Amino acid sequence: MNVRPAASVGDPVERIDTPALVINLDAMQRNLAAMAGFARDHGLALRPHAKMHKSAVLARLQIAAGAVGVCVQKLSEAEALGAAGVTDIYISNEIVDAGKLQRLAALAGRIQLALAVDSVLGVERLAHALHAAGTMADVLVEVDVGQGRCGVAPAAAGALAHQVVAHGLRFAGLQAYHGRAQHLRSAGAREAAIEHAVTLVRAAQAGITSAGMRCPLVTGGGTGSFVFEAVSGVYGELQCGSYLFMDRDYADNEPAFEGPRFEHALFVKSQVMSRGASHAVVDAGHKAHAIDSGLPRVWQPHGRGALEFGNGGDEHGILRPGAHASAADLPQLGQTVWLVPGHCDPTVNLHAHYIAVRGGLAHGVVEAVWPIDARGCLA
Amino acid sequence: MNVRPAASVGDPVERIDTPALVINLDAMQRNLAAMAGFARDHGLALRPHAKMHKSAVLARLQIAAGAVGVCVQKLSEAEALGAAGVTDIYISNEIVDAGKLQRLAALAGRIQLALAVDSVLGVERLAHALHAAGTMADVLVEVDVGQGRCGVAPAAAGALAHQVVAHGLRFAGLQAYHGRAQHLRSAGAREAAIEHAVTLVRAAQAGITSAGMRCPLVTGGGTGSFVFEAVSGVYGELQCGSYLFMDRDYADNEPAFEGPRFEHALFVKSQVMSRGASHAVVDAGHKAHAIDSGLPRVWQPHGRGALEFGNGGDEHGILRPGAHASAADLPQLGQTVWLVPGHCDPTVNLHAHYIAVRGGLAHGVVEAVWPIDARGCLA
Repeated sequence: MNVRPAASVGDPVERIDTPALVINLDAMQRNLAAMAGFARDHGLALRPHAKMHKSAVLARLQIAAGAVGVCVQKLSEAEALGAAGVTDIYISNEIVDAGKLQRLAALAGRIQLALAVDSVLGVERLAHALHAAGTMADVLVEVDVGQGRCGVAPAAAGALAHQVVAHGLRFAGLQAYHGRAQHLRSAGAREAAIEHAVTLVRAAQAGITSAGMRCPLVTGGGTGSFVFEAVSGVYGELQCGSYLFMDRDYADNEPAFEGPRFEHALFVKSQVMSRGASHAVVDAGHKAHAIDSGLPRVWQPHGRGALEFGNGGDEHGILRPGAHASAADLPQLGQTVWLVPGHCDPTVNLHAHYIAVRGGLAHGVVEAVWPIDARGCLA
Repeated sequence: MNVRPAASVGDPVERIDTPALVINLDAMQRNLAAMAGFARDHGLALRPHAKMHKSAVLARLQIAAGAVGVCVQKLSEAEALGAAGVTDIYISNEIVDAGKLQRLAALAGRIQLALAVDSVLGVERLAHALHAAGTMADVLVEVDVGQGRCGVAPAAAGALAHQVVAHGLRFAGLQAYHGRAQHLRSAGAREAAIEHAVTLVRAAQAGITSAGMRCPLVTGGGTGSFVFEAVSGVYGELQCGSYLFMDRDYADNEPAFEGPRFEHALFVKSQVMSRGASHAVVDAGHKAHAIDSGLPRVWQPHGRGALEFGNGGDEHGILRPGAHASAADLPQLGQTVWLVPGHCDPTVNLHAHYIAVRGGLAHGVVEAVWPIDARGCLA
């Protein structure tokens, strides 16, 4: 509400106030093109997960590059992005609250909308809300393919799909995302996890066929695993989100054997605001970057001596020299320090704006300031 | 920007949309009164830390109960709360950026403002900005009393205080907060840490006296340690913030031997949106509660069988039966689950509104919906 943007269009990078969430546009556009090209080359639909960037501008860039629409996790995200002009949104998550489903049914009158289900109660309430509003939404049955969170067992998918149709709704396919597979460090382990997921998807598909129905689509895949879903022969749509920004946690993965490589494109700009003899303190703590997947990494593209980022609490980060550096490598009071967030999704959610820079972090210029439309849209 | 409040004034608790940040007003007001009474009884000023609640309404409630003003950590927090009517704000943190100091000097023309310093550069730049604007601010020298983050060594405090005065600024005292002491679980360990801090404060005071100056105030103390600062004889002002809401992490401390006890007054209301045979999934993940100090605790005041909260990622929480419970104790699809956040400060920062409930979580009514004015004010 009271958050002023950290910069204005045309500002040089050094004038961006700190801490700020900064996009390296050149890197981001290479990531955008690489993922779009991969999906196209494999004959797959791409529906990037907008829970990651929460931005209508970025959703539209993805769609302009070939994406069929976007995913979100929450109704309020769909409402915010829908209000900002995104017209094809899939809520890849369950909603059972009657009040929320009433809002969903209203939104379905304005945009192309889809929702995942994993319970008969969810199907009943969704049908009730849509019928009352006189609107329609696509319905995907979520199958638990290894995440151990939401979704039905493969053997139950056919019966639930049947319920969808029996309630007068459109059965659009299977939601089959394996979140736990995304950050298995070894590429082989991720491949094995997705091979197992594919086995479970095939079992769910068989159940649907037995129930006399067809399964129009299997959708899933993330930035850590999409290469494996892509070659599975069962997935028709990829949901990757983080590829656009590449956070520290994804970069720590051993890359897949084939497939595109992505660059870091999202940074937190911070400033040294206190200096000790053997440490420097920057003005970005975990109110500026989420630490659920570990601390950020100090961005040192020219390897000037590894600085280690230490947890300094909500508003501070503590830099110390790494194994191959000394106190002389620490930045001085007032200097800029660029951080690569541990996990992009919840980091983005902490900020009100993207500061989009063209021409690199060292000498670039602010090309755009974009609101993070669905920031804080939790419900 | 696009976040709609989860409820309206007059709504019963069951109608609050999820996830939502809910204040139990009755409990909060008991906490408010207990802390105000403690400070009054000990003849100490209370300047609660508004980095925790980021709310002008709550700051004004604290001031009405006797607080002299509030602390914040960031200039943008001071700007947001100042714009919302809070007139006495201490930024208990360093700022060395010239652009920020220019804004600070402007704000100092509108409200009573104070800032901490720990470098000559910081003093020089602050003086330059204030003199250019023709405004004044109180300046406190931060001493590192055990946190190992910002602040000068005690032996350097006198020289820096002298610099403050030499630059035509008002030296208002010492900032001496020991953040690391707050969550030492044993009360004895916290007492020992503050005893050591007090020794360091005395050394800093001696340096100031040697420099021919007096030290008007020592300010510090947090919810985990204030009882020990209060009896030290050196602290004149307490900065506690979390006492108002009491999070899980503070509740896990062994209580101090004496001093008030605080109740949980801040909750995340969540809803079960998926059910497995041996787990339930709620719609609140770490975009709805910060996990830097650990996961939230499921609020089970009547001990109906301990449910364990497991990390379900950004948008989900996974409930499993604890050691003394079984799957039969799991809540059903659609049921409400109240969570006590692990750490209140960064949890509050994730939300756009407080939903303030009178009459308890079970049968209460929404009395107020308050904006979280300084949410996302990072700079």
